Amino acid sequence: MNYCQMSKDALAALQAELCGCYDKILEKKLSLDMSRGKPEKQQLEITEDLLKAVSSNADCYTEDGTDCRNYGIVDGIPEAKKLFADLLEVGTENIIVGGNSSLNLMYDQVARCMLYGVSKDATPWCRNGKNIFLCPVPGYDRHFCICETLGIEMINVPMTSDGPDMDVVEELVKNPDVRGIWCVPKYSNPDGCVYSDETVKRLASLAPASSDFRIFWDNAYCIHDLYDESQPLLNIIDECAKAGNPDMVYEFTSTSKVSYPGAGVSVVASSKANIDYIRGIMQFQTIGHDKLNMLRHVKFFKDADGMRAYMKKHADILRPKFEAVLEMLEKELSSCGVATWSKPRGGYFISLDVPAGCAKRTVELCSGAGVKLTGAGATFPYGVDPEDKNIRIAPSFPPVSDLLSAMEVLCVCVKLAAVEKLLSK
Amino acid sequence: MNYCQMSKDALAALQAELCGCYDKILEKKLSLDMSRGKPEKQQLEITEDLLKAVSSNADCYTEDGTDCRNYGIVDGIPEAKKLFADLLEVGTENIIVGGNSSLNLMYDQVARCMLYGVSKDATPWCRNGKNIFLCPVPGYDRHFCICETLGIEMINVPMTSDGPDMDVVEELVKNPDVRGIWCVPKYSNPDGCVYSDETVKRLASLAPASSDFRIFWDNAYCIHDLYDESQPLLNIIDECAKAGNPDMVYEFTSTSKVSYPGAGVSVVASSKANIDYIRGIMQFQTIGHDKLNMLRHVKFFKDADGMRAYMKKHADILRPKFEAVLEMLEKELSSCGVATWSKPRGGYFISLDVPAGCAKRTVELCSGAGVKLTGAGATFPYGVDPEDKNIRIAPSFPPVSDLLSAMEVLCVCVKLAAVEKLLSK
Repeated sequence: MNYCQMSKDALAALQAELCGCYDKILEKKLSLDMSRGKPEKQQLEITEDLLKAVSSNADCYTEDGTDCRNYGIVDGIPEAKKLFADLLEVGTENIIVGGNSSLNLMYDQVARCMLYGVSKDATPWCRNGKNIFLCPVPGYDRHFCICETLGIEMINVPMTSDGPDMDVVEELVKNPDVRGIWCVPKYSNPDGCVYSDETVKRLASLAPASSDFRIFWDNAYCIHDLYDESQPLLNIIDECAKAGNPDMVYEFTSTSKVSYPGAGVSVVASSKANIDYIRGIMQFQTIGHDKLNMLRHVKFFKDADGMRAYMKKHADILRPKFEAVLEMLEKELSSCGVATWSKPRGGYFISLDVPAGCAKRTVELCSGAGVKLTGAGATFPYGVDPEDKNIRIAPSFPPVSDLLSAMEVLCVCVKLAAVEKLLSK
Repeated sequence: MNYCQMSKDALAALQAELCGCYDKILEKKLSLDMSRGKPEKQQLEITEDLLKAVSSNADCYTEDGTDCRNYGIVDGIPEAKKLFADLLEVGTENIIVGGNSSLNLMYDQVARCMLYGVSKDATPWCRNGKNIFLCPVPGYDRHFCICETLGIEMINVPMTSDGPDMDVVEELVKNPDVRGIWCVPKYSNPDGCVYSDETVKRLASLAPASSDFRIFWDNAYCIHDLYDESQPLLNIIDECAKAGNPDMVYEFTSTSKVSYPGAGVSVVASSKANIDYIRGIMQFQTIGHDKLNMLRHVKFFKDADGMRAYMKKHADILRPKFEAVLEMLEKELSSCGVATWSKPRGGYFISLDVPAGCAKRTVELCSGAGVKLTGAGATFPYGVDPEDKNIRIAPSFPPVSDLLSAMEVLCVCVKLAAVEKLLSK
């Protein structure tokens, strides 16, 4: 029954019933966590042979004879560059292989723009009166935190099922203080959408007032399909080049959810001019990232197709979890008319929208019942969801049994918060 | 015979003789490299078991059960903190464990000062009209490059056998634009000196005009003794605390020359207040450094004493090389009166001083004869040795036979350049 069509009396009766359910849940003294997009143990266990891939002195050399134990090579060993160039469908001259954290590459890239500017003759952003980034919402909290810590203002841009609302983006980049946009173009965090060809082309063809405007393209889930058929995404680096904006994009990805979140390999891809410029600064920052770990990854995955094929193992573990969550949402909430949610075909999250003003209350009720969710508002800049309605569900970490228990609690809490809101009107 | 006491005619005859030697060397078509402070292959081979230290799923956990493969822990696993805290004789609350490059930690620390300031209420250095670092010379080129790339001015401070000339340092820090000093306090790069107790105490007791003045204490060679008896160095973090300057120093070290230059573990140590502040910013920069590699190091070295003991293996490989270089210098150059050199008891370098105006020429002559040395001037800010007299010798990488050949060439070239200079007067 659609709650919005119920009388106050009927709602009050429903509230009493839901409170009863909630009290029963409290008796269970649950302690469940759906807050983090972490792979579960089984996903880590399948990668055991990576640990053995470089286990003797003889294993430590690249194909061209470089000793990966020693100094040298600031931008990644050739075979790791090849692996990731093939994966992202760019040239090896467009690639720098980093350490274990693509977040670190993203932060460093924004910090470089602040300290040096986007290119040799550009003004360092730290000398500008104001810097603004566009933030499609809901989005990834760690992107927003980079901006916040570096004093970059953020403007929300609404997401559509095709990606950011491009009419809004095209209007906002007329502001010369707007220097960047954060994008998670495939299986977007948290709503799981894949940017349409038109969205990618319009992004690549932007004519921003600021010549140092840059797209930060966090392709974290580029091969993270839950089903056999992958939803295609246009190659942003190609599209920017075609549109006459070859230097306008930095693309990032990593093996955090392919091999290990804590010990993977990250990569940044861009135009050759950008990569040369970045390498020129990076050489003062580091003697180069861990080459042995790059080698482990190459030996384990062999090539980009090997990495793509490997993702089916992760999908087999993750898919039942996503389906369990979606089934529960469907069963418990579809008839109530108080919630909508994404049905992602990949990535790590499900985005749940509850009635305006109910997200914080729902998360609070869950927390009270021992179910930890990502904080309400976390998917927005400054942690502020203007409508207080978005909740990010992360199904990957808990086992299915825990997930079902947690979802049962979440659905009761969504209903309870919605009824409270309706009764308060 | 002392060249300075020779007649022009005798010098001309000597020059002809040396040219003959040089021509004979040219016939050998050598290709030798003494330019880089790189460990040689044998030093890397002895560490083979590190590669096997984490080789199964069961190996991936910290003592307290954290899965090192997954996300979590921004500042290092507890046992790695303990290892390095014991090594540097500080508390675990004074430690952040980083990635494979202490240079990266140093660059990031300077960059953080630029972007955020040294503490919560401090002015970001990038907003200052001018920032100056004091650079004891000769010193480490990569320190100077960090300053140069970030637009920090550098002032040379002469080195003595006890460390930087503290009279000069104490005078220069009265300038409020002076924000830092680079120090390699033990087996200094390149001259191998160990800072005396008095130098350390005077550094710790500095009263700089700028309240955000910081000592960058690159303790790269803290356990890198060539002989059984280690030359003691006072604990700068303790001394700064005692002197009422607890937040004035950042100490860095790494296992680059303990385990692997390309795949080691780095660390920054400082007051708890500084470490808390750094961690607070680092959490936006990275999901944390490679925990599996930290675990490998802990499992392989066990504890700080294990690491100290392990360094004797490196010493056994390096000592004969240092001694071969020093014997050759003694035999070939001691009577000529045209060169002085350091006799280090640890570290990776020997510093050779030739007559003023002769360093570039010597390196050029060596290069012409197929012997690559660190570029003349590299040990000074901006690559400019004002007297053009310092040459850095890196004996670690070539085998002893190559080293002897290279040193033979170097000694002929030193003599030739000196004679040319004397004849031109």
